[in-house]
Amino acid sequence: MEIVRTLEELHAARKKLEGTVGLVPTMGFLHAGHISLVKKAAETCSHVVVSIFVNPTQFGPTEDFAAYPRDLDKDVALLKEAGVDIVWAPTEDVMYPAGYQTYITVEDVTRVLEGAMRPTHFKGVTTVVAKLFNAVQPDKAFFGQKDAQQVVVLSRMVKDLNYNLEMVVCPIVREQDGLALSSRNTYLDTAQRKAAVVLSRSLRKARAVFASGERSSRVIRAEMDTLFAAEPLVKVQYISIADPDTLQEVEKIDRLALVSMAVYVGKTRLIDNTILGKIDTGLDDLHP
Amino acid sequence: MEIVRTLEELHAARKKLEGTVGLVPTMGFLHAGHISLVKKAAETCSHVVVSIFVNPTQFGPTEDFAAYPRDLDKDVALLKEAGVDIVWAPTEDVMYPAGYQTYITVEDVTRVLEGAMRPTHFKGVTTVVAKLFNAVQPDKAFFGQKDAQQVVVLSRMVKDLNYNLEMVVCPIVREQDGLALSSRNTYLDTAQRKAAVVLSRSLRKARAVFASGERSSRVIRAEMDTLFAAEPLVKVQYISIADPDTLQEVEKIDRLALVSMAVYVGKTRLIDNTILGKIDTGLDDLHP
Repeated sequence: MEIVRTLEELHAARKKLEGTVGLVPTMGFLHAGHISLVKKAAETCSHVVVSIFVNPTQFGPTEDFAAYPRDLDKDVALLKEAGVDIVWAPTEDVMYPAGYQTYITVEDVTRVLEGAMRPTHFKGVTTVVAKLFNAVQPDKAFFGQKDAQQVVVLSRMVKDLNYNLEMVVCPIVREQDGLALSSRNTYLDTAQRKAAVVLSRSLRKARAVFASGERSSRVIRAEMDTLFAAEPLVKVQYISIADPDTLQEVEKIDRLALVSMAVYVGKTRLIDNTILGKIDTGLDDLHP
Repeated sequence: MEIVRTLEELHAARKKLEGTVGLVPTMGFLHAGHISLVKKAAETCSHVVVSIFVNPTQFGPTEDFAAYPRDLDKDVALLKEAGVDIVWAPTEDVMYPAGYQTYITVEDVTRVLEGAMRPTHFKGVTTVVAKLFNAVQPDKAFFGQKDAQQVVVLSRMVKDLNYNLEMVVCPIVREQDGLALSSRNTYLDTAQRKAAVVLSRSLRKARAVFASGERSSRVIRAEMDTLFAAEPLVKVQYISIADPDTLQEVEKIDRLALVSMAVYVGKTRLIDNTILGKIDTGLDDLHP
């Protein structure tokens, strides 16, 4: 496994790879969710490139860029074990040198949900991911369904900008009790960690109510609200029931619906989601 | 030579090319300036791809998108003769399908000169050129110095977005009397065509004044203005003397300076430019 920092090193290492290349973009502090993406990439591509870069432009001014957890040595050990070919860990200087001034904007689908709460977030995400795509030139790119809107936004960008690559979306990986894995879970203390289970519990509730035949978003959301009301440590920022492609809110669910949410557990902001109306493949099991 | 329309056809044709690939992006209605780019590409790359697409997003609402000259049959004949491998002539549907919503913005260097006069122009240019880069994945891309600011903007985009390709800038090709070749010259009637020589004449004047030791932009511009004042058919929109990298206006020329202009000859808007302070290679000869 090669670990590279600069663009020149990356290009030299990339040139040596023959056959198909899978890219797994990450911000490091890797957990089993990331590793599931790496495994999927290794199964479906000749070679795997993993990028590790905590991207400043996708954090808002009051967000946790400085505090975001980092552990490159541990990440490298995990990726070596997973059979990765290249780890690209650029510095901020490499990604945003003096005079940097180019940004990519996806319009409609970034205006709602996470984009409404974090107005500059997706501009940072699309810009940095385009940079990773251009530098690595992968055949496939792997993302987790955990960031559901990110998947919609990046898929739109790939299509709109004619990227000649396949977006592969992998299921959310969860703890035994249902909590979706996130590098930010490390911020939670014991009581908060216990309370955070309400996210996946509320999604299971939404699924159960939907399965019983309910199709009104208002009714489903009210059932979820009841669970959150019983958790004083958790404060809901939004719960959305939306069309999975356009991300516009739906009142009556007549096809598929993306149920997604952002909540605060103390100062830690967590997100989670599930899709209603999809045949249960067991892959997006919400536990327990 | 293959002529392709859809992305799928392009990908299939591109896959067959081995070695290096040069891309020449054009809006068609090709003249000797375009052909000089194709020749340079053929000299320096194993294969040449030329795109032909009159890009609606780089025209303002009152500009000449509908009237812009088109002649695909003639273009194809010229490119066949020049030894091109692939001509990609996508339709608007291929480039901007329903739901399209992704744009690339280069900030500082698009705010002046052409960008100040045509506020949405460069957003259209950078977006479409990124799409061409992503679809073709060239090793080199060829552009004419005629659109001097476009070269600066696209070079910035290539660097900022980590495109793994080389920008090759080729000299302006001119008529015998000095008029820079442009597909828009076709709009000029006989009297206008004659008057239009004042653009290159004013640039020659700027060079002569600079060569005599003058370093004040104000003085050089005044000398140019005198020539334009004597041409009632020509109306100056701007004359700029700016740093060739940042495009910021300079008062005293202490290194290189880009002299650029936009003028109206009747309803036809023409641009031209030259660089002061560069060693004369004969390549950017202004004639006669």
